[in-house]
Amino acid sequence: MTDPEQFHVYDTTLRDGAQQEGLSLSVQDKLAIASHLDELGVGFIEGGWPGAVPKDTEFFRRARTELNLKNAQLAAFGATRKAGTTAADDPQVRALLDAETPVVTLVAKSHVGHVERALRTTLDENLAMIADTVGFLVGNGRRVFVDAEHFFDGYRTNPAYALQVVRTATEAGADVVVLCDTNGGMLPDDVTATVRDVLAQTGARLGMHAHNDTGCAVANSVAAVDAGATHVQGTVNGTGERTGNADLITMVANLELKRGMTVLPDGALQEATRIAHAVSELTNIVPYSRQPYVGASAFAHKAGLHASAIKVDPDLYQHTDPAHVGNDMRLLVSDMAGRASVELKSRELGYDVSGDRELVTRVTQRVKDLEAAGYTFEAADASFELLLREEAEGRPSYFDVESWRVITESRPGGDAVSEATVKLRAGGERVVVTGEGNGPVNALDHALRTAIGALYPEIDKLELIDFRVRILDAAHGTDAVTRVLVEMTDGKTSWETVGVGANIIEASWEALVDAVTYGLLRQGGASIS
Amino acid sequence: MTDPEQFHVYDTTLRDGAQQEGLSLSVQDKLAIASHLDELGVGFIEGGWPGAVPKDTEFFRRARTELNLKNAQLAAFGATRKAGTTAADDPQVRALLDAETPVVTLVAKSHVGHVERALRTTLDENLAMIADTVGFLVGNGRRVFVDAEHFFDGYRTNPAYALQVVRTATEAGADVVVLCDTNGGMLPDDVTATVRDVLAQTGARLGMHAHNDTGCAVANSVAAVDAGATHVQGTVNGTGERTGNADLITMVANLELKRGMTVLPDGALQEATRIAHAVSELTNIVPYSRQPYVGASAFAHKAGLHASAIKVDPDLYQHTDPAHVGNDMRLLVSDMAGRASVELKSRELGYDVSGDRELVTRVTQRVKDLEAAGYTFEAADASFELLLREEAEGRPSYFDVESWRVITESRPGGDAVSEATVKLRAGGERVVVTGEGNGPVNALDHALRTAIGALYPEIDKLELIDFRVRILDAAHGTDAVTRVLVEMTDGKTSWETVGVGANIIEASWEALVDAVTYGLLRQGGASIS
Repeated sequence: MTDPEQFHVYDTTLRDGAQQEGLSLSVQDKLAIASHLDELGVGFIEGGWPGAVPKDTEFFRRARTELNLKNAQLAAFGATRKAGTTAADDPQVRALLDAETPVVTLVAKSHVGHVERALRTTLDENLAMIADTVGFLVGNGRRVFVDAEHFFDGYRTNPAYALQVVRTATEAGADVVVLCDTNGGMLPDDVTATVRDVLAQTGARLGMHAHNDTGCAVANSVAAVDAGATHVQGTVNGTGERTGNADLITMVANLELKRGMTVLPDGALQEATRIAHAVSELTNIVPYSRQPYVGASAFAHKAGLHASAIKVDPDLYQHTDPAHVGNDMRLLVSDMAGRASVELKSRELGYDVSGDRELVTRVTQRVKDLEAAGYTFEAADASFELLLREEAEGRPSYFDVESWRVITESRPGGDAVSEATVKLRAGGERVVVTGEGNGPVNALDHALRTAIGALYPEIDKLELIDFRVRILDAAHGTDAVTRVLVEMTDGKTSWETVGVGANIIEASWEALVDAVTYGLLRQGGASIS
Repeated sequence: MTDPEQFHVYDTTLRDGAQQEGLSLSVQDKLAIASHLDELGVGFIEGGWPGAVPKDTEFFRRARTELNLKNAQLAAFGATRKAGTTAADDPQVRALLDAETPVVTLVAKSHVGHVERALRTTLDENLAMIADTVGFLVGNGRRVFVDAEHFFDGYRTNPAYALQVVRTATEAGADVVVLCDTNGGMLPDDVTATVRDVLAQTGARLGMHAHNDTGCAVANSVAAVDAGATHVQGTVNGTGERTGNADLITMVANLELKRGMTVLPDGALQEATRIAHAVSELTNIVPYSRQPYVGASAFAHKAGLHASAIKVDPDLYQHTDPAHVGNDMRLLVSDMAGRASVELKSRELGYDVSGDRELVTRVTQRVKDLEAAGYTFEAADASFELLLREEAEGRPSYFDVESWRVITESRPGGDAVSEATVKLRAGGERVVVTGEGNGPVNALDHALRTAIGALYPEIDKLELIDFRVRILDAAHGTDAVTRVLVEMTDGKTSWETVGVGANIIEASWEALVDAVTYGLLRQGGASIS
């Protein structure tokens, strides 16, 4: 592959990304994420601010023995020395050395307004702070990158000073000066013009650090690269303060697939979807289904008119092959679709129904009727599959529900409680079980598990992980029809089911029974009917 | 303001936006969303595809009498006639006329690959389909826009043909030809170059329709405008197929605040945050906190180093004043940001609290605590007002609830039924009442009315008209916290209340009691405490 030194992919998920509201990473989380970032093949992992943030000092300490990086170099982030002292005497700077990383990235002020009103020092002293700190670290064998903070705003306010900052940093030995759109207010044209100017005036090696406040972080980064930058900073999944940093995966996918550049090791981009989801889990952020390239919906098509066309000619409908980023194409069954999408969906689920026109007709009609009643199969593949099986060979059944009842009552001074009683037949026996829960559906779930747990111990593996309620035709208040979508997992994969009814509890029960039935089917249990 | 005809803001939330996986809007939802879009001041609202989608035919029918648009014109979306027939004889085209909208937007093929492999017709016939259909609709008094589908890919494949499509459409009378990046694979440079070429070669009035597959939908739209397009299409909150359409609000905020253009009516942009959230609720999509401009985190700063600096000099840290889009700056460590909005909201509801610092502090703290627990007052003014009164002079109370209980049970061969028993004190008496309903909340509503109907006959005027459920922290399945928003009317105005709890029934009861209390307050009933 291309020399990774030609183009830098610099990840700051662990430092700038961690500034996102509500995000709090432990040292263990950071080490695990760093391994994934290394798998992705980024050139640099900014691990945090040692000294200033105790968890980060710990991270760099443990990384020395616990992280075995194959692709990335670790970078410690920090600031230029305080005004009025020397780099050698500044404990914050010393802490950067103590992290013992090959790279140190220093944030430096490049906007006269910030130097004067935030740092409250002189323009000259600020330049001295940059020169001194960069020189000190280079003299101690570190490779130094300088993040020129608020650069674009600063360049608009006083371009001469901003350029002086760039020259000072490079003259003192910094490898790269990263132009930061710290407030995120730039549009791509602004970035292109500025990067071109700075390159022409200084000849420095430039990088880009964008934020998404105008919705243009990725575009701004690509614009900077087009204008000559050879170093981009971002975070996996675009986490970060306010609207976030540039999404690193979207950026590298664009550079590789649209600009034909090679910025990751061979084969690494194909791991992007898996890695993006793994990082989501570790940062405890719900994956964004509409995320470019790696989102669950990124290549999901409402079949409708072009269902048949998509299978023949995916290029006509997709801007790239999802396999390039490890994602899949999916066809959604919806009321816009007809036979074609039912056939395609069935095939996707492993059933070849093309030879049975009558079956397809029956299934298509049932889907349409149910959708008119409020069902949606787009987000309920498992319910669709059960319907298909029902029409084809009979619905798998592991238990036969006789009745259910839920009582919910207020408790003085505490939360209301729910109690569900389920009566069913399974394995030749009639069972009456009561389960408790902090909500009606929770209670029904517990009752069902208790009722069939002895006969189907594999039900222990099944867990409800998502539960979504939508009142349809909301103008009718509590008389409306309710649609419930449930997601269940067995620890390996997950599936979704749907339930609809005038009664919210009944709709929930329907989705729950479908989910458990499907789960038992997946476990390979022999159905009783 | 600038003549809205100079620049078109065209919203397709109800048509292209509705293509998002999992999104299914009822006609009622669409009408409600359309009102919000009109409030935002967009020039055009694309309501759907009448004829092809039965719900959309219904939408346009009801819109005629139920929608009172002040700013926007309604547009019906559809396709050019089928090959081998005439526009006048094509029922799909007729249906577009029958929608009786001032504007009709036609999607037309502009990519030779699509004409030949998807439509399976000749290049000439496709041009005839465009000319015929546009001419037919213009001849019938409609204003026609043409969406040139897959334009950018088509222009790369066969630019001459793509340009012919543009000319054919305009010669037949189309007002605007919208260049669509249907597969979403473009980067801003590609868009700039193509739009400039097409403008130079045809002189047509051009529009842009971007998708976010490369994470550049907004940037692509802005690039198109910079290159001479005077019509942009997008959806509120960027909903849409796969990775979504260009986020309309981000786009217009960029054009107004960064490019100094006036594309919305005076004062409309300041409603953006409120409207974005209202549309989120109606589309039942969890608001994206990192959304540019209007997201909850968009102006949330991790106070840390620059807390004091931010208050003195917000421009140093914010790319724009959040008030321009109706959002607030928030400091995540301190609570200073809440007071201002509490004062403003109170004044809006008719209470001047500016003289009572202590009251404002107490109310702000309660709002913060409740919001941390899952409450939202953005869509629940009446609950906020009751909280304010409670802190100021004591909460109005018309009945004192002792306990409630709901039993829901399955019925063989029919819908489940619910029965609620409520025990309360009102007017010096203790009442025990049971109400029935087709759902638990319906049953509680009936029980409550029966319990206090004799004492407060005015409760007959009160009607529940909306009931929305959201499970917060959905990753935890049925153990999650539920938030319920209820809307009630007295026939003249309506108000909204909120309830939160681990138990969905309890959360619903809380919102219901608030709604009835507020309703009785409005009726002027003397509170019993």
